[in-house]
Amino acid sequence: MSAAEPEACALSSSSLDVEEKCQYYGNSSSDPPTEPHPDMDMFCCHSVQDSLLSSDSRFTNYRGILNWIIILLILTHAHLFLDNFIQHGFLIDLRKVLEHLMEDHYNWPSVNLILAANMFAIAALLLERCLDKGTLSPSAGHCLHLGNLGLLTLFPAVIILYDTSISTGGAYFSLWTYTVLGLKLYSYQETNSWYRQGSVPSSGTDKCVLHETKKHIEHLTIKDLYYFLLAPTLCYQRNFPFTPRVRINVLCKTLIEMVVLTQIIVGVVQQWIEPIFQRSENSFSNMDITTRVEHLMELVAPNHFLWLMFSFLFSHSYLNFCAELLCFGDRHFYGDWWNAKTLKCFWGNWNIPLHKWRYRHLYTPLLKKRVSQKQADLLVFLMSAALCEYVIALPLHSCRLWIFFMMIFELLVDVYLGDYFKGNYGNGLVWLCFLLGPPLAMMTYFHDHYMSHHGQHPPGLSVAECLS
Amino acid sequence: MSAAEPEACALSSSSLDVEEKCQYYGNSSSDPPTEPHPDMDMFCCHSVQDSLLSSDSRFTNYRGILNWIIILLILTHAHLFLDNFIQHGFLIDLRKVLEHLMEDHYNWPSVNLILAANMFAIAALLLERCLDKGTLSPSAGHCLHLGNLGLLTLFPAVIILYDTSISTGGAYFSLWTYTVLGLKLYSYQETNSWYRQGSVPSSGTDKCVLHETKKHIEHLTIKDLYYFLLAPTLCYQRNFPFTPRVRINVLCKTLIEMVVLTQIIVGVVQQWIEPIFQRSENSFSNMDITTRVEHLMELVAPNHFLWLMFSFLFSHSYLNFCAELLCFGDRHFYGDWWNAKTLKCFWGNWNIPLHKWRYRHLYTPLLKKRVSQKQADLLVFLMSAALCEYVIALPLHSCRLWIFFMMIFELLVDVYLGDYFKGNYGNGLVWLCFLLGPPLAMMTYFHDHYMSHHGQHPPGLSVAECLS
Repeated sequence: MSAAEPEACALSSSSLDVEEKCQYYGNSSSDPPTEPHPDMDMFCCHSVQDSLLSSDSRFTNYRGILNWIIILLILTHAHLFLDNFIQHGFLIDLRKVLEHLMEDHYNWPSVNLILAANMFAIAALLLERCLDKGTLSPSAGHCLHLGNLGLLTLFPAVIILYDTSISTGGAYFSLWTYTVLGLKLYSYQETNSWYRQGSVPSSGTDKCVLHETKKHIEHLTIKDLYYFLLAPTLCYQRNFPFTPRVRINVLCKTLIEMVVLTQIIVGVVQQWIEPIFQRSENSFSNMDITTRVEHLMELVAPNHFLWLMFSFLFSHSYLNFCAELLCFGDRHFYGDWWNAKTLKCFWGNWNIPLHKWRYRHLYTPLLKKRVSQKQADLLVFLMSAALCEYVIALPLHSCRLWIFFMMIFELLVDVYLGDYFKGNYGNGLVWLCFLLGPPLAMMTYFHDHYMSHHGQHPPGLSVAECLS
Repeated sequence: MSAAEPEACALSSSSLDVEEKCQYYGNSSSDPPTEPHPDMDMFCCHSVQDSLLSSDSRFTNYRGILNWIIILLILTHAHLFLDNFIQHGFLIDLRKVLEHLMEDHYNWPSVNLILAANMFAIAALLLERCLDKGTLSPSAGHCLHLGNLGLLTLFPAVIILYDTSISTGGAYFSLWTYTVLGLKLYSYQETNSWYRQGSVPSSGTDKCVLHETKKHIEHLTIKDLYYFLLAPTLCYQRNFPFTPRVRINVLCKTLIEMVVLTQIIVGVVQQWIEPIFQRSENSFSNMDITTRVEHLMELVAPNHFLWLMFSFLFSHSYLNFCAELLCFGDRHFYGDWWNAKTLKCFWGNWNIPLHKWRYRHLYTPLLKKRVSQKQADLLVFLMSAALCEYVIALPLHSCRLWIFFMMIFELLVDVYLGDYFKGNYGNGLVWLCFLLGPPLAMMTYFHDHYMSHHGQHPPGLSVAECLS
């Protein structure tokens, strides 16, 4: 319980009081009390004093309440858990997921799609080499780069929309790969153009700046590009910071975390979320308002746990695994968003690589173009919201803008309620937005996709099959 | 959130870091960052650092998690609450309880029984007067007092066991009145005998001791006795500490608390506990083990909330109301049992008047008779456990010793596990025992009483009727 450490002093002094009291009233097994005189106590056993909970008593030690809340939460969920197993039996079946992944006719289209992504990376490298040798003018190179990135964006979208043989899971995987690749290649071309322009501060002492002129051409290699593409970052730079060696124990730890968490996530989906999906008789877009609220309430808890586990799995375990494997030094993949007191801080700390990219390649360039800070903030936010909607809605073929509007709604909450919710209350508001905001909107997409594939209560159908 | 105050410094410094970071990465609306140089940041945007959640990072600020737990708990229970209303409709009906209380043929026996209790009080006063005048020898007086107390114990027990016209609610009310009266009269006669023996410390400076010889006879009055009998304490003394006046606002506040809490308690019983009772098809003594565990799990949460509310209603609101009305000064009716780190401390702080009585009239006299501390502790505990069983089981006519054995079990838990659960973990153990211990055993008594009166799923029968 490390969060409680600053309270330790206050607590121990109070617990001493309690123990003294216990001893005084004889419930302790240590020596009998000597002060005050026992017979005095016999005659006058009352004194004027307030009840602890009355407002006059100035008593403020409620440390035990925290333990109470934790135990109550665990017990409540243990009960829901038992209830679920009693009601539905044991539904978790990892084989279903594995079998689904093995069926090759579902996954070859997405594997091919991902392999095709190399094309765009190589094109970007070739363009950079031409630009570096001077065989292309900077503006022409920039245009060609943007064309390359445009194709990279359109290509998977078109394939996913028109190739019906691609599975939903495969579509997600390839779209996310392409999105990450697009962000990385944008960073690659822009950073390389900065290097070429030599816009280096004269007082620069960092090695990556000093070596810039000497080792220019050395960096435009396949190896350097692919290291960047595989590294857990979206921002390109030459000479990434390295760790001295691959630590096997860290690799094993993150690998075990990934295996265990994946199984728990599959378990939550199959045992908790799927029965809720199966109980509903309509898609969210066709429900009346009370049924919709009831269903959303049911989905809040499993969806939230899923998100927490997924974010830990991805932001901590997976990215650390990659970083360890590549000796990549910068492991700052997430801030302490759980302590965030404003939604802005939450968004800034949730996904640091994406946030860095936004700051470096969207926000700062906008500022340099004399856009005001607030407008730049808003533009960056709108682009992020649109990107979220795009990467979630496209593979499901259902663009209804709920995630986008949910994020806009959160922005309004932050702007209009942020002043009233400070400190702890601000943190509470952030958690509430996280619980009821975009993640829940996202879940409705999956729910409706599930409903459109398995209408009225199909028994025994799995989400894995639904993803096909 | 007063419990969090000691953490405020650590938190605010950390949140400053976060805000600085947010500003640095451009998500703040204040002035643009000047250090480090923005272009430097553009080129080298990575540095070697650990993830916050990895064990190397030494990051320990998880303050936000507390807010998360609280919100999750509220949402989960809001969902259970909604679910309950959707499933059962609105079952709360205060009129049922009031109508039941108005039906006079149910309640006259208990009213008569309570009025008869005055007899024993008057007898005790008369005995004291005779002892004071010397018309009775101390030993004969003591024997007569014990006889009076014995009758006082047997009388309600016999009436409740053999008078079938008495309602269960009335039986509870009268048995508890008699029990409290018995404890008070025991204290009355013992304290008065101490006063007579003049076993006063020579260095005594307290007014109640100094005035002792002068005002001896003045205290053996009806008024003094009835003040003690109505006052919220079990230990007699002459000259109780008084508050200067009755504060109307405190009276109103406690009265409102009592009215509101009573309604919530009735609501929880009718809306939450009764449907669980109605769902069960057997009494606990006839259930197989899995059904029993399942049913107990269902009852844990409502039973716990009921206990918390009842203990606040009684220990805080009701006793403070009485004390305010009587200008009784000593309002120390409960300690901070929620912070207790051992079960001993919990028992010592749960009900201070009873604990004071045990210490003054059981524990200390036992020590004076050269009983060892541990044995005295054990004896006092066994007597308390037996008293609990007696006052709960007798009105239901079902003495099966579950509460008694549950308390013995807790004693064993305290003795054998107390050494392994220290500090916060000890507090967790205390909460767990409180959640799953005697209160739950008590609930099974009521459950089985309900089952014996309304067998297979009677629709629309109320607990109030069941108490008849």
